[in-house]
Amino acid sequence: MKTISGGVCAARGFRAGGVWCGIKASEKKRDLGLIYSEKTCAAAALFTTNLVRAASILVSAEHLARGRLHGVIANSGNANACTGEAGIRAARRMAALAADELALGPEAFAVASTGVIGVPLPIEKIEAASSSLVNSLNNDQAGHDAALEAIMTTDTRRKDIAVECEIAGKTVRFGAMTKGSGMIHPNMATMLCFITTDCAINRELLDRALRKAAGLSFNRLSVDGDTSTNDMVLILANGASGNAPIQTEGPDYTIFEETLIFLCVKLARAMAWDGEGATKLVTVKVSGAGSEADAEALAKSVVSSSLVKAACFGADANWGRVLCALGYAGVSFNPDMASVDFAGTADAGNSGVVTVFKNGSPVEFSEEEAKRVLSGGEIEIRVSAGDGPGSAEVWGCDLSYDYVKINGDYRS
Amino acid sequence: MKTISGGVCAARGFRAGGVWCGIKASEKKRDLGLIYSEKTCAAAALFTTNLVRAASILVSAEHLARGRLHGVIANSGNANACTGEAGIRAARRMAALAADELALGPEAFAVASTGVIGVPLPIEKIEAASSSLVNSLNNDQAGHDAALEAIMTTDTRRKDIAVECEIAGKTVRFGAMTKGSGMIHPNMATMLCFITTDCAINRELLDRALRKAAGLSFNRLSVDGDTSTNDMVLILANGASGNAPIQTEGPDYTIFEETLIFLCVKLARAMAWDGEGATKLVTVKVSGAGSEADAEALAKSVVSSSLVKAACFGADANWGRVLCALGYAGVSFNPDMASVDFAGTADAGNSGVVTVFKNGSPVEFSEEEAKRVLSGGEIEIRVSAGDGPGSAEVWGCDLSYDYVKINGDYRS
Repeated sequence: MKTISGGVCAARGFRAGGVWCGIKASEKKRDLGLIYSEKTCAAAALFTTNLVRAASILVSAEHLARGRLHGVIANSGNANACTGEAGIRAARRMAALAADELALGPEAFAVASTGVIGVPLPIEKIEAASSSLVNSLNNDQAGHDAALEAIMTTDTRRKDIAVECEIAGKTVRFGAMTKGSGMIHPNMATMLCFITTDCAINRELLDRALRKAAGLSFNRLSVDGDTSTNDMVLILANGASGNAPIQTEGPDYTIFEETLIFLCVKLARAMAWDGEGATKLVTVKVSGAGSEADAEALAKSVVSSSLVKAACFGADANWGRVLCALGYAGVSFNPDMASVDFAGTADAGNSGVVTVFKNGSPVEFSEEEAKRVLSGGEIEIRVSAGDGPGSAEVWGCDLSYDYVKINGDYRS
Repeated sequence: MKTISGGVCAARGFRAGGVWCGIKASEKKRDLGLIYSEKTCAAAALFTTNLVRAASILVSAEHLARGRLHGVIANSGNANACTGEAGIRAARRMAALAADELALGPEAFAVASTGVIGVPLPIEKIEAASSSLVNSLNNDQAGHDAALEAIMTTDTRRKDIAVECEIAGKTVRFGAMTKGSGMIHPNMATMLCFITTDCAINRELLDRALRKAAGLSFNRLSVDGDTSTNDMVLILANGASGNAPIQTEGPDYTIFEETLIFLCVKLARAMAWDGEGATKLVTVKVSGAGSEADAEALAKSVVSSSLVKAACFGADANWGRVLCALGYAGVSFNPDMASVDFAGTADAGNSGVVTVFKNGSPVEFSEEEAKRVLSGGEIEIRVSAGDGPGSAEVWGCDLSYDYVKINGDYRS
């Protein structure tokens, strides 16, 4: 497996583009994007678990029911959520506009929206821009970049990737882009993630691989504990690589799944890094729990704690808060067997491991060394919860002044 | 029922006091407190649900098993949590020190601690101060004030109350003090609450009334989503008012319970107001839910949302975040029947009601008026979730820069 350039357009047969249609009035940044494959794609998706679902989610779920799509049209600046029947009509129209331009049926496209909730989607602006949107399609990095810009909101950095691997003697490519910064919490996030691949694979296995990969990546990510109305992870597989279609589990499927997991974990970590106001990527690794599910619950409790997050921001080795968060995770473990380490990473220039709690008791440690380790841009909190077989890794970020600033007046 | 002065000493037969013993090294504020009744008290308590429990909680639960106590000894500046066997010994010693001075058995006292987790409790400092602690006992406001100061940590204001009511022809008094600012979340909080009453009531009914009152007050309170290792609500009833002992449910019990609920709700609201960094008290009222439990879950989801809290800080009528938080509460409701109002209060000088969402659709509203209402010190978010019978009210606060500041470097 190797990382390549081109984003979603790295996968053969995919084109992407984006334009500014005027939803983001003040910025003139692109706000309408399109990803398109001329060849029909096997498609699979995961949608928000929030009971309040945006119109785009409802319409995309309908269109996806057939399991085949040609692409996705997405806008930023407006979530088209809590917008009633008019919102549903607007989402349908949005799909139809892209489809009309490409001489396809309206169900050929998924629809995605992100932005403010509860404001009517200005569909007339999308209508006016649909022709230029389709004209902006390109099968190269520039096409990918334009679509990526069009789905970003408070994101401060690009979160995209492309990789290639070999499946049954053919080079298979994957590309992906994601949007997501605030309101990110398991399961899913105000995140949009569009993944393309030129692999030939049937829909059932595509769906299985996506669920597996999302469970180990996006569903292990927390920025602020809010699960949005608009989350969507979509994968489109057009088969353009010419590989013998993957129809059963086996070595080919395994490579496919592993590549997809690699890609999704990379994106999930990038989203944690780009959490609103985040100054640090915080990874929590729990081992020794009763089961993987227990380990995940313990780790998520720690990574979601506002007090732990604030301590990370302040580079304060306040391990008591870690213990406390483990204690209210709702999962059984023996505090007397627990250990906690803080660690940095070589990449972020703060490598080192400081053990602060071992087998149920505090450990003397150098506050200076702990401060140094916790002052880096990447922090690991490693917890041993006992001698069980369960382990899990989750990602989040610190809680900073800027989080409050960004969210104290987001709409204005 | 009327509010009176005297705090925990308003209840006849109770004395209180507090001294500085040196746990809070840098401040010379009182850090060791005592509440004492010469007459034996019926006692009931609720303890943290956190799996990691401070030594004081373990020891208090033991001492409470008999259902009778003479008082409580409490320190601030050190939580005596995650301190292993030495911590348990220190907590036992703390109770014994108070008891020795008063010629009682060590099980006569509950023990409470609040402060930093994981640092050994300097029991020798408590030992050196135990005599002056007992000498500081007074049966007046000054005694109450000294004990109250001794349990405060990052609290910025005093949270105490005393009331009297009439039960079966006798004047019965209640007094209470509470500590709690950060790490507050249902169920319970890093909160200590000590309630005294001179009512005569049996232990079973005392316990029932406390559970009922806490369920409607402290368990409906969230500051930052963290449930601490040290939470304790303790009530002591010494019977000094001379009322005919309450032995069964009936009119006397009803007055007792109602008075206790009144008192606990007042304290819970005061704690929300004093949330770390809080600039506003946020009350969420949900009606029309399927059941009271559903209403409580919906309301807690809204009041705990970091995004809602940040919007309250910014006086931003971002009702989409309210809908979103309702949607992930894990409770069934029909978003198409939901309505949301923002309201202020006359007391805080921002009276007014702004309807922003009605029967599943956004409502046009004056942003200026909404800003005015949300700029007050007390905000209500009122949600109608449908036409069900369930309603509930919960309290929290906004999320400010100061929360991050306070918690980014708490230990130093």
